[in-house]
Formats: sequence, structure tokens, C-alpha cells
Amino acid sequence: MTKTSNAMWGGRFATGPDAIMEAINASIGFDKRLARQDIEGSRAHAAMLAATGIITDKDAEAIREGLLTVLSEIEGGKFAFSTALEDIHMNVESRLKEIIGEPAGRLHTARSRNDQVAVDFRLWVRDQCDAVDGALLAIIQALLAQAEAAADWVMPGFTHLQVAQPVTLGHHLMAYVEMFARDRSRFADARKRMNESPLGAAALAGTSFPINRHMTAEALGFDRPTANSLDSTSDRDFALEYLAAASICAMHLSRLAEELVIWSTAQFRFVRMSDRWSTGSSIMPQKRNPDAAELIRAKIGRIMGANVALMTVMKGLPLTYSKDMQEDKEQVFDASDNLLLALAAMTGMITDMTANRDVMEKAAATGFSTATDLADWLVRELNLPFRDAHHVTGTLVALAESKGCDLPDLTLADMQSVHAGIRADVFDVLGVQNSVASRTSYGGTAPSNVRAQIARWKGLL
Amino acid sequence: MTKTSNAMWGGRFATGPDAIMEAINASIGFDKRLARQDIEGSRAHAAMLAATGIITDKDAEAIREGLLTVLSEIEGGKFAFSTALEDIHMNVESRLKEIIGEPAGRLHTARSRNDQVAVDFRLWVRDQCDAVDGALLAIIQALLAQAEAAADWVMPGFTHLQVAQPVTLGHHLMAYVEMFARDRSRFADARKRMNESPLGAAALAGTSFPINRHMTAEALGFDRPTANSLDSTSDRDFALEYLAAASICAMHLSRLAEELVIWSTAQFRFVRMSDRWSTGSSIMPQKRNPDAAELIRAKIGRIMGANVALMTVMKGLPLTYSKDMQEDKEQVFDASDNLLLALAAMTGMITDMTANRDVMEKAAATGFSTATDLADWLVRELNLPFRDAHHVTGTLVALAESKGCDLPDLTLADMQSVHAGIRADVFDVLGVQNSVASRTSYGGTAPSNVRAQIARWKGLL
Amino acid sequence: MTKTSNAMWGGRFATGPDAIMEAINASIGFDKRLARQDIEGSRAHAAMLAATGIITDKDAEAIREGLLTVLSEIEGGKFAFSTALEDIHMNVESRLKEIIGEPAGRLHTARSRNDQVAVDFRLWVRDQCDAVDGALLAIIQALLAQAEAAADWVMPGFTHLQVAQPVTLGHHLMAYVEMFARDRSRFADARKRMNESPLGAAALAGTSFPINRHMTAEALGFDRPTANSLDSTSDRDFALEYLAAASICAMHLSRLAEELVIWSTAQFRFVRMSDRWSTGSSIMPQKRNPDAAELIRAKIGRIMGANVALMTVMKGLPLTYSKDMQEDKEQVFDASDNLLLALAAMTGMITDMTANRDVMEKAAATGFSTATDLADWLVRELNLPFRDAHHVTGTLVALAESKGCDLPDLTLADMQSVHAGIRADVFDVLGVQNSVASRTSYGGTAPSNVRAQIARWKGLL
Amino acid sequence: MTKTSNAMWGGRFATGPDAIMEAINASIGFDKRLARQDIEGSRAHAAMLAATGIITDKDAEAIREGLLTVLSEIEGGKFAFSTALEDIHMNVESRLKEIIGEPAGRLHTARSRNDQVAVDFRLWVRDQCDAVDGALLAIIQALLAQAEAAADWVMPGFTHLQVAQPVTLGHHLMAYVEMFARDRSRFADARKRMNESPLGAAALAGTSFPINRHMTAEALGFDRPTANSLDSTSDRDFALEYLAAASICAMHLSRLAEELVIWSTAQFRFVRMSDRWSTGSSIMPQKRNPDAAELIRAKIGRIMGANVALMTVMKGLPLTYSKDMQEDKEQVFDASDNLLLALAAMTGMITDMTANRDVMEKAAATGFSTATDLADWLVRELNLPFRDAHHVTGTLVALAESKGCDLPDLTLADMQSVHAGIRADVFDVLGVQNSVASRTSYGGTAPSNVRAQIARWKGLL
Repeated sequence: MTKTSNAMWGGRFATGPDAIMEAINASIGFDKRLARQDIEGSRAHAAMLAATGIITDKDAEAIREGLLTVLSEIEGGKFAFSTALEDIHMNVESRLKEIIGEPAGRLHTARSRNDQVAVDFRLWVRDQCDAVDGALLAIIQALLAQAEAAADWVMPGFTHLQVAQPVTLGHHLMAYVEMFARDRSRFADARKRMNESPLGAAALAGTSFPINRHMTAEALGFDRPTANSLDSTSDRDFALEYLAAASICAMHLSRLAEELVIWSTAQFRFVRMSDRWSTGSSIMPQKRNPDAAELIRAKIGRIMGANVALMTVMKGLPLTYSKDMQEDKEQVFDASDNLLLALAAMTGMITDMTANRDVMEKAAATGFSTATDLADWLVRELNLPFRDAHHVTGTLVALAESKGCDLPDLTLADMQSVHAGIRADVFDVLGVQNSVASRTSYGGTAPSNVRAQIARWKGLL
Repeated sequence: MTKTSNAMWGGRFATGPDAIMEAINASIGFDKRLARQDIEGSRAHAAMLAATGIITDKDAEAIREGLLTVLSEIEGGKFAFSTALEDIHMNVESRLKEIIGEPAGRLHTARSRNDQVAVDFRLWVRDQCDAVDGALLAIIQALLAQAEAAADWVMPGFTHLQVAQPVTLGHHLMAYVEMFARDRSRFADARKRMNESPLGAAALAGTSFPINRHMTAEALGFDRPTANSLDSTSDRDFALEYLAAASICAMHLSRLAEELVIWSTAQFRFVRMSDRWSTGSSIMPQKRNPDAAELIRAKIGRIMGANVALMTVMKGLPLTYSKDMQEDKEQVFDASDNLLLALAAMTGMITDMTANRDVMEKAAATGFSTATDLADWLVRELNLPFRDAHHVTGTLVALAESKGCDLPDLTLADMQSVHAGIRADVFDVLGVQNSVASRTSYGGTAPSNVRAQIARWKGLL
Repeated sequence: MTKTSNAMWGGRFATGPDAIMEAINASIGFDKRLARQDIEGSRAHAAMLAATGIITDKDAEAIREGLLTVLSEIEGGKFAFSTALEDIHMNVESRLKEIIGEPAGRLHTARSRNDQVAVDFRLWVRDQCDAVDGALLAIIQALLAQAEAAADWVMPGFTHLQVAQPVTLGHHLMAYVEMFARDRSRFADARKRMNESPLGAAALAGTSFPINRHMTAEALGFDRPTANSLDSTSDRDFALEYLAAASICAMHLSRLAEELVIWSTAQFRFVRMSDRWSTGSSIMPQKRNPDAAELIRAKIGRIMGANVALMTVMKGLPLTYSKDMQEDKEQVFDASDNLLLALAAMTGMITDMTANRDVMEKAAATGFSTATDLADWLVRELNLPFRDAHHVTGTLVALAESKGCDLPDLTLADMQSVHAGIRADVFDVLGVQNSVASRTSYGGTAPSNVRAQIARWKGLL
Repeated sequence: MTKTSNAMWGGRFATGPDAIMEAINASIGFDKRLARQDIEGSRAHAAMLAATGIITDKDAEAIREGLLTVLSEIEGGKFAFSTALEDIHMNVESRLKEIIGEPAGRLHTARSRNDQVAVDFRLWVRDQCDAVDGALLAIIQALLAQAEAAADWVMPGFTHLQVAQPVTLGHHLMAYVEMFARDRSRFADARKRMNESPLGAAALAGTSFPINRHMTAEALGFDRPTANSLDSTSDRDFALEYLAAASICAMHLSRLAEELVIWSTAQFRFVRMSDRWSTGSSIMPQKRNPDAAELIRAKIGRIMGANVALMTVMKGLPLTYSKDMQEDKEQVFDASDNLLLALAAMTGMITDMTANRDVMEKAAATGFSTATDLADWLVRELNLPFRDAHHVTGTLVALAESKGCDLPDLTLADMQSVHAGIRADVFDVLGVQNSVASRTSYGGTAPSNVRAQIARWKGLL
């Protein structure tokens, strides 16, 4: 067959079936990223095998030392990965045998690649939960710092990207603190749920060796061993839940990035991204392309794509291990790398950005953005029904419009010409500063509230 | 324009722009499902407005009674929904005004449709978390009942859908108990995270009325009010997290359904689905199409599709409310309806199914499925290194194959001809019953383990 | 079992297994939309059965007339659909029998529900291709009309949403004509590929009756019968390809909608959407929420979601018909309804929108947007290498910036102080009008080009 | 800032903002795969610039020769890619300058990176259409070869994975020929639609240089230049359409792979995969894990995932180029690599697989799979109405069942005891061989049909 390979296999595979099988089958190209976790798992397993008398202490010690040597070779970039050995497990075990000889053959007792890869990948994903937690903490701190400085900087609050009511920039940034805090909580829940050790499930049915799964679970920082061996080797929920949490987090980033892109336009000029996170034009000095924001905005694509990919792979798979599941790792690797990168870049952008306070405040004052404040005053102070208050307000806005001024610029006489009961203290709620200051309901945009929330979060972190 | 509508608007919209705008804009066609939640929210809001002195007790009472009347009209099917009134909020308020007159106009004080829809939809999704929890509990109980009956029924454990090692049917079913229990835990976490009240965030900035958001939060069973008004009206994480948990749960269902489809084939004959969950053929009496299992297997499609849909909608939306977010409800409604339906159907199928114990056990005994038991015995009892044990086992299997028998059918002399150290007690681990009985490691398939797990779960539920 | 239904089935299904099975199994709730196609297919089938002598002409005539009666009952809203009869096929056939009696029983000869539903659904999807084609034609015409009026209206051409180079609004709108024209071509290809008749594939294997599949294919407007009976009943490519084309089209709509949302902001003010496609605020007269644009922007979510849903359903299904495939219709129905609605709404919005020519032109002139024109002039006229030309341009821009003016406002002396070779005719390329006029390369933004493209498209349509 | 990088940036990015920006911004890590296309595009551009007198022939010649040198360095693995130079375009241009000096600076005249990357990526995707076409041709040929050998090998035709009617293996394999042929047609349409040259659209607006876009289009094998410069730099339809076609093709592969996995089980034993495409067990000789089939089945995950990813990225992007679009390439690269790999592996598996004719035929004869043939005979020969024929058939099946035999084993007297009109020639349609032979309707499974279809396809290819 090899001789007819060109004709038979078509496309780019000129080399015949063996090369194709190796290309589709081998995972070492990507699962070498699990090297550290694989070795940790094996060291814990060896210690347990000795503790339970399944292998000798001496063999266990040789194995554990030898694995450290392998790890240091890998971390030092001196390890020669072999595609013929297919995956990280065989690459490590094979090298271990070269280093320590016969005892290496005892490491795989009461274990199989099915539970081994399950424990490796869980450890890796668990590490990512921790890394993402750190990255979320960093972005929250960056947001808190900017929010604190801008707790009373007025800007337009938008609905439909239309100016609706004045808010403060601090309050706006704190909305993202809420989102990223939920993300942290979501990753924390995922981490907790995945924190069970599948090691010792063996091929699928458990083992007749007198192993101690609680011991390996504890050594690897798991809360407990998994309770069903078939589930242990079939389960990839932990990866899917990680991807689901990552997708929601990436969605939050996409919203903030979109805002930064829009706010950076010549038309909005709300913020100026630093040179570091932009690219310019050699001949158009005002052009400052928000490249980083755009790339961050896009990351939700590949992260949600990875979620779809792995969910599709898992759809309809009978228990227990099927080779389809080898497709799990690249999706999670790529999604996690990109999420961490996007979080780090956004953290940098937020830290470096400069808001144009005057431009924002001026924008907030357009479009009669305090009309609702006026209407609320009428309800609150004059006890007008809501709908009547809206009618009076509409008339006053029309009056201001006809005079070419904003609501606070009307005279009291103007006001009273529309509704006789209006008093001078109505002006206390008009104007964007008054407006934001008045919104003191819990969660509202009043600067005092914003500062209280910032203090609350600082206390929590 | 109306007169040229056919030419201008093309396609099926012969009626001109107004009809098109109404068709794309109105949500009452689907958000009427939020009627109960809308009315609950409004009743809590009215009570709070009175308690804080913003409206009178009398008005509040009229509103609260009137809303109950509206609810009973809706639940009784006597309510005439109006598309012109666009959504459930306006439909309810408009009817309330007909019933109680002027006080109805005070209900919307210190509130906006933006926080109103946010609270309605959260309440609805929270209810779904509870409904799914009940449905998951039911399926777990159905699985436990079948697992208990089959705790020691031997069947093949598969990897790659190839017979690998014997397990018990009870153990296999318990793997799904683990999955569905994780699902419960995931929905519980989502419920807890979403259980904050956005009511009182108003349009986006909070309000200057002296409202008490903690009071409405408590009245509606929320743990606390949300902390940021912009986030409150922009956030749809709770819907996305629900869809993510639902997708993973649907994936579990798809795996179990796939197994039931395969197990029901003439070739496997492991189980027989009851008439109730199958369709037959009028002329082919043995044909028993596993329709319900196939439909359940398919549900992951629309549920994950809904997840993709809403995530795509939310991508890149600036704060706060944008009309895009109106697309959130239909996706969650459809996903939740189908998840509950699939869970109920699977519960019924599991309850009604009959396993063919003999066929399963016979299948488990094929393919030298206890070869690993033999190898493990050699390691454990004769202290052979793992690789040597495999070599001896391979030789014995070849011998059995040449004799046309299975491993337990070899004589001790046969055994010793390959390795002199083999003793008679090797036969204790051969045979599928011995094999499963020996897998006593935690989480392993030994019937004693399976029964202990069933007891543990029964204790927990 | 029924008596214990509450306990057993949990969740909302209080009614026991039979109701659940009916709920998950019956398709009449949605496949009644195929009524016309089902009857068309049956009428063609009956005519063919008579022509080939399989049934009598008299029976065929009775069937064909009776089916018209059924159709008119359905279209007149007088048909009582029955869930017990499961699907549209059985509902129609059952009613036919009531109307014409015994001959109804001969209609199903040499046919099965498997090929029947395949032909019904193909006919339906084919109709949607035609409907979308009409809707795309309408939007293209709306764009052409606006583009013609604005062929020389200058606006900023953006990259990264930063002003880059001046273009014309006409040119910008024509970019969408290209996109929607590709969409038409894509639907046309899909239509052509799906236009084969599966009728006569029977259950899966073909039939021994001497049917004439070419005759029914022709009667139903198909190009030919399908060539393989197993494929005919298993294939849903036509639905997936429709969804793929619809997704790309929805993506185009999302981009245009996003632009309209941004262009409608107080900050951009490039366009004003008509009242018809916006919603306002009773008290904020300048607020004009672009609701329709936002809803259109969101539609890609559910349409791509449907694509994911059906692809997930089809993943890994063995041949031939599986009940999973019943999940195909709702996805395509919803996607198609929403695509047509979004196209119609966008057509209306484009037709009604008013562009602010002055605002756009002024925006185009900011940011030294003709700096590249200057650099190109230096290369073209003075033969400077590209990089040198950029250096000179950068120096001139800096000079203009220091003087607080734009490039066209510099004097020739200013120019020559930087590069002595610059001549007075350099001013012919500066200024946004000159810039766009000069871009005469094929596909460039010069108004003459734009008008030529409009003329070309008008000729093609 | 750099000094506080650990604290600020969190997570794994210890190196501060510059490293993060480089990591998120640079594309050379993946877009170097476009080297050949980039150089082809540049060579065509240079030739055109000379032909139109924009640069000298001498410069053009130097550029064209220099680019060949760069290409040979890259293909020879001697090129040092630089991340600081960001992308393939700058890497190539920079190296060109080192080789040929000043004329290199003239290459970028009348061009920008925006149209350059658009042309590069189109050329690459177009190449993939050709590669996939070759791979599809190869798999079709492999299927034809197996189908020809098995044109009359009887196997069960399944619905719901239940035995329904006998078909032939040849017919079953030919169903996949239809699918893969549709895939070819889909890729061909996509290729045709994308085959327009964006080169010369420049940054976004076209150019004032007298370029000849038709000339470069022709040189690069495009059918014509694109007609709108804004669309040219914003459009990624070609990539999305490629991914859509690839997703459908991957779905077909997943179905075939699923069948092979099921057919390879100990329970079905319909086929035996060759050693090459399986992995075994050192001690369980009958275990033959269909790894390649499982991996192929899974590929739809990442390919549809890529489709979702890019669609999500493109959602809502304003014209023209935004940096988000840099996320396009990795998705298409990965999807295309995996599709080609999966097609090659499936081609090999099909070529190497061995069907168990006896097992299949025996399975086909179970379950009264020719009952429909009997019913059809009663309709055809005795003119019984369809429903009556079914009743008679059901009674005969029950009779056979009670006797423990199949339909062909009944005597004529048995038959006539149920319906007196039955004649001896009824036996001509019973038995699986008779059944398949009788299904001669166009597209039916009769071996004569199958052979005709094979011949037709051979003629077409």
C-alpha cells in the first residue's frame, strides 16, 4: 500500500497510512504540557504503592527520585519527546526506565493510562482555575484603582448607546468589578467541584490491589477520591465547566473592550488608551488604534468555540474511555491561554488608560439627561402620580428646547408657568452633579455609594 | 410608504413597516410566561413603596389586590394579551389600571422596565433551577432503584465500545448518579449566585426615592440586593450560567441515551425498553424503536445551541440595557422546557427498562476480559514486574485461544507450563464474577462497593 | 405507575409517562407548518401511482381532490390538528380518509414517512431560499437607492473605528450590497444542491413497486430524484447548508446594525433613524433608541445557535432515519422566520434613515485623514520611495498640528520648507473631496466609481 | 510600571505590559503559514506596478527575484522569523530589504497590509479548497472500490439502529459517496465565490495610483478583482463559508466513524478494522480499539467550534478592518488541518477494512426484515389496500413467530390459511436476497442499481 500512497491518500498526505495514523493518533505534541502534573501524579502513586506494601519503599524511592530527574530534564528543555511513544505518560515512563531501570516497570501497577490522564488533566485545569483567579484579582484591583480616582467623575449612563441618565465613571467601572467577582466565584465553584481524585480508578473498574485512593488524593491536594471508577475515567465535566466559566468571563471582557473601542473614537473621546496598548500611524498622529481592546473583544470567539467543540465531542459518547476524549486538551489549553492573556492585557489597559473628565461630563449633560430627576422630584415632592409627572416634565423639556437651553437653565417662573407648585428646591436635583448625588438608593450611582462599594471590595479582597 | 409595501419590503411582509416593527419589537408573544414573576415582583415593590412612605398604604393595598386579580385572570386563561402593549409589564399594568384606576399609576414609581424585567427573569430562572433539581432527584432515584436490583449483575465494561473488563450494571448506572449529582450541585451553585435582587436599580442609575431594596429582596426570597445598578440591568450571567449547566446535563443525558439505543439493538440485546417509550412496527413485531432515547440524545443540540445563541447576543454589548437583550428569554425558555422534558422521559425509561442479565453476563465473559485480573494476580502474588506479568498473561491467552476456550477453562497444568509459580488460587480471580468481586478499591465495581455507594446516596438524598 | 406519577416523574410532569412520551414524541405542534408541502408531495405521488398503474386513475383523482379539500381546511383555519396522530403526515392522511374513504388507504403505497418528511422539509426549505432571495433583493434595492443619493457624500472611512481615510457614504453602503449579493449567491447554490427529490426512497431501501421517481421529481419542481435511497432518508445537509448561509447573512446584518447603532449616538450623529424604527422617551425628546437595529444585531445569535443545534444533533448518527432528526425543523423554522424578519426590518430602516451629510463630512476631515494622499502624491509625482514619502508627510502633519490647522491649510511655502520639490498641484489631492475623487482604482471610493457600481448592480438585478 | 509587573499583571505574565502586548498582538507565530501566498501576492503586485509604470522594470525585477530568495529561505527552514516584526508581511519585507536594498521600499506602493493579508488568506483558503477536493476524491474512490466488491453483500438496513429492511453493503457505502460528492460541490461553490482578488483595495478606499487590479487578479488565478474596496478589506465570508462546508463534511465523517465503531464491536462484528487503524491490548488479543474512527468522529467538534469562533468574532464588527479579524487564521488553519487529516485517515480505514459478509447477511435476516416485502406483494399482486395488506402480514409474522421460523420458512398452506389468494410466487420476494433484488426503483438497493450507480460515479470522476 505504501507505494501507492500518493494515489490512495490524496491531499497532503504523501506518506501513506502509517504516517497518517501517527499524525491523528499521537498526542505528545500537545499533552507534553501535562508533564509536571503527570509526574506529580506518578510520584503520589508511587508513594502510596509503597505505603500499602504493593511495591517496596526502595523501588518507590527510586521512582520518585527518577521522576524528579525527568521533570528537571523537561523543564530544562533537555528532554527529547518522541512521537512514537505517543503521549506524555509513555514518554515519561520510558525515560524513567532509562534512568532507574527495572523499578520503573512497577510504577504502572494498579493504574492505567485512563485514570492517569484523568488525574493529570484535572490537576492542570485546577491550576488554571488558580491562575485565572489571580488574573481576575489583578483586573479587579486595577478597576478599583481607577474607580476610586473617578468615583465622582460624571459621565453619561447609556441605554441603547443613547445618553439616558448621568452616572459616574467610578460607578461604571464598578459594574465590571461585580462581573469579574462573579467570574471568580464561578471558577471557585468549578474548582471545588472538580477537586476529586480519579487516580486509582484504573482502566475503568477499579483494581484488586489494596490501594489507598484517599492517600493519593490528599497528596495531590484533592478533597477526596472520586466515588465511581467508570465515571472517573469517562468524566470531562471539569473541563466543560471551566470552559463555560471562561466563556462568560470572556463575554465580560468583550463588553468592556467594546466600550473602550467606542470611547476611544474621535467622536466620543471619553478615554485615551496609552501608547503601549495601541498602535499608531506614522503619518496620522491622532490615529491610535485600540488593537489590544479589539483583540480582547475577539477572544470570546475562540473560547466559546472551544466550549462548543468539547461539548460536541462528548455528545453521545458511551462509557467509559473513548479515544474521542483525546480532543479535550487542546481546546482547554487554547481557551485558558487566551483568557489569561486577555485578562492580563485588559488589566494593563485599564491601569494605563486616561479618562477625559471634561468630555465625559459635558456628554452627560446633553439630551436632558436629568429629566427623570425632575419627574421623580414632582412625584416625590408634589405627590403627582407618575404619569402626570411625566407629562409636566415633557412640557418643561419642550420649553427648554424651544429656548435652546437645558433644564437647569430654566427660571423658576418658567417652571411655575407649567406647574404652579414647583418650588426653588427643584434645582437641587437638576444638573448632572445633583443628579448623581441624589441616587443614593443601594447600588445607585451616588459618589458616596460608589466609594462605599470600593471600600467594601477592598475589604473583601 | 404603506401603499408600496409589497415592493419595498419584499418577502413575506406584505403589510408594511409598522407591522414589521411590531413583529420584531414586541415580546409579549413569549414574555407572557413571566406573568407570575412579574406580578410577584410588583406586589413586593408596592409593599415596599408603602413601607417607606413613598405611596400610601391604601394605594399599595389596592395595587396588591388588583395584581392578584390580574394573575387569576391570566392563570384562568381569561386575560387578553395585547401586542400593541408590547410586553408583559405593560399588559399587566394596563389591566391593573382598568381594575383599580389611578393608584395603578403609582406602582411604577422608583422603578423602570429595565430592573423589572431583570427581576422577573431572574425569578423565572431561579424557579427553573428548582424544577431541574426536582427532576434530577427523580432520575437519580430511578437510577438508584435499578442499580440496587442490579448491583451484582455482571456486564461488560467498555472502552472504545470494546469489551474491556467486567463490571456490574449497578456500577454502570451509578456512574450516571455521579453525573446527575454533579448537575444538581452545578444548578445549586448557579441558583445561589443569581439569587440577588436587581429590583430598585431603576433605569440604570438607582433612584433618589428612599426605597428599601433589602425589603423587596427579602420578600422575593433573594439573599440580598445587587450591589451595582448598572450591572443589575446589564447582567444576564444568571441565564448563561443556567444554560451552561443545562448543556452539561443534556450531554450526560445524550450519553445515557446513546447507550440505551445501542443496548437495545438486536446485536446487543442488553436491555429492552418498555412499549411506553418505544414505537413499534405494525408488521415487524421485534422492531422496537427507541424513540424516546433518540429524542433525549438530540436535546443537547438545542440546549447548547441556546447557550451559543445567548452568548453571541451578549458579546460586545456596551452597558447598560440594549434591546438585543430581549433575545434572552426564548432561548432559556426552550432550553429549560426541553431539559425538563428530557429528564422526565429518561426517568420513565430507566424506571421501565428491563435488563437482560444473562445476555450481559455472557457478553462480559468474551474477549478474555479477565486477562488483566490474571496479570494483576501475577504481579500481586508472584511479585512479577508489571511488564513480565503482561507477557505471561499474553502467552496464556494465546494458549486458551488455541484451545478454543476462555482463561478459567485452562487447567492448572496449562498455567504452570507457562509460568511454574502459578498456583491453584489463581482461579479465584478468573471468571467475571470473581473479577468484579475482587475490584474492591474505593470506587471500584465490586458489588459490595456498589451497594455501599447506593446506601451512601440514599442517605444523602 | 400512573398513580405514583408525582413521585416518579418529578418536575412539572404530574401526569405520568404517557403524557411525557406524547410531549416529547409528537411533532404536530410544529410540523403542521409543512402542511402545504405535505399535500403537494402527496398529490404528486398519487398522480404518479396512477400513471404507473399502481393505483387506479379514479382512486388517484379522489385522493388528489380530497387533499385539496384538506389543504383548504387547514389554510382556512378549520382543521383540528390532533396530537394523538403525532405528525402532519398522519393528520392529513387521517382527515383524507374521513373525506374520501377507502382510496385514502392506497396513497401510502410505495412510500414511507421517512421519504415523505424528507420531501416535505426540502420543499419547505427550498421555499425559504426563494423568500430570502426576495428579501435580499429588497434590501439591495434599498441600499442602492440610498447609495445613489449619497454617491459623493463624504464620510470617514474607519479602521479600528478610528478615522482613517475619507470615503463616500455611497461607497460604504455599496459594501453591504456586495455582502448581500454574496448571500444571494450562497442561497442560490444551496437551493440548487438541495433540489433533488427524495420521494420514492421509501422507508430506506427503495421499493419493488414500479414507481417513476423522475415524474414526481418533475411535478414538484425538483431537478432530479436523489440517487441513493439510504442517503435520501438520512440527509439533512440541505437544512444545515441553509442555516450556514443564513448565519453568514445574519452576520452581515449584525455589522450594519452595529454601525447604525453607533452612528445614531449623540456622539456620532451620522444618521437619524426614523421614528418608525426607534422608540423614544416620553420625557427625553432627543432620545431615540435604535431598537430595531439592536434586535437585528442580535439575530445572529439564534440563527448561528440553530446551526450549532442541528449540527450537534446530526453528529454521529448512524444511517438511516433516527428519531433525533425530528429536531431539525424547529431550528430551521425559527432561524428562517427571524432572518426574514431581520431583513425586512433592516430594509425598512435603510429606506427611512436620514444621513447628516455635514456631520459626516466634517468628521471625515479630522485627524489628518488625507495624510496618505499627500504621501502618495510624493511617491507618484516626486518619485520618492514610499518610506521617505512617509517621513516628509509626518513632518508636514507635525507642522500643521503645531499651527492648529489641517494639511490643506498649510501654505505652499510651508510645504516647500519641508521638501523643496513640492508643487502647488499638491493641493489637488488634499481635502476630503479631492481625496475621494482621486481614488479611482477599480473598487475605489471615487464617486464616479461608486456610480458605476450602482449602475452595474441595477443592470444585474 | 515594569518594576511592579508581578503585582500588577497577575497570573502567569511576570514580564510586564510590553511582553503582554507583544504576546496578544503578534501574529507571526501562526501567519507564517501564509509565507508562500504572501510572496506570490507581492510578486504579482510588483509586476503590475512595473507594467503600469508606477515603479521601474528594474526595481520590479529586483523585488521579484529577491522575493524568490526569501521564499527559498523560508521553505528551506533558514529564515529567522522575528516577533518584533509582528507578522509575515513585515518579516518578508524586512528580509527583502536586507537582500535587495532600496527598491524593497517601493513594493508597498499602492498597497496596504489590509488588502495584503486579505489576498494572502484568500489564496491560502483557496488552496485548501483544492486540497480538500483531492482528499474527497480519494475517499470517494476508496468507497467506490469497497462498494463495488460488496454491491450484492446483504446487510441490515437500520432505522433507529433497529434492523428494518435488508440492503447491500455496497448501497450503504454509496450513501457516503453521495454525501462526500455534495461536499465536493459545496467546496467548489465556495472556491468559486471567493475567487476574487482584494489586492489593490489598499487600506480601505482604493488608491490614486493608476494600478491595474485585473492584472494582479489574473496573475494570481482569480476570476476578477473585488468590486468594493471597503468590502474587500472587511470581508471574511470566504473563511466562514469554508468552515461551514468543512463542518458539514466533518459531520458526514462523524456518522461513518460512528458506524465503524459500532460495527467493530464484539456484538455487531460487521467489520474488522485493520491493525494499522486500531490499537490493541498486549493481553487481550481480541480487543481492537477503533482509535482512528473515534478520533475522526470527534473532529466535528473542533471544526464546528472554529465555525462558531470566527462567526462570533465577526459579529457586529463595523467596517472596515478591525484587529479582531486577526483571530481568523488560527481557526481556519486548525479546522483545515484536521479535516484533511480525518479524510486521509478515513480513506485509509475504508480501504483497509474487511467486512464480515456472513455476519451481516445473517443479521439482515433477523426480525422479519422482509415483512414489508410481503405486504408490498399483497398490495401489488392481490390489489389489497395498504392497510389490509399490513394486517395480513402481521398475522403471518405472528404465525411464523409461533412456529419459531422466519417468513420464507412458512409453507404455502400456512400462507393461504391467512389469506386464500396468496400464490407460490410470493416466495420470490421473501428472503433477504430476493428482497434486495426486488428494490429496483431508482436509488433503491437492488445490486443492479448499486452497480449502475458505481459505474455512473466512475464515469463522472
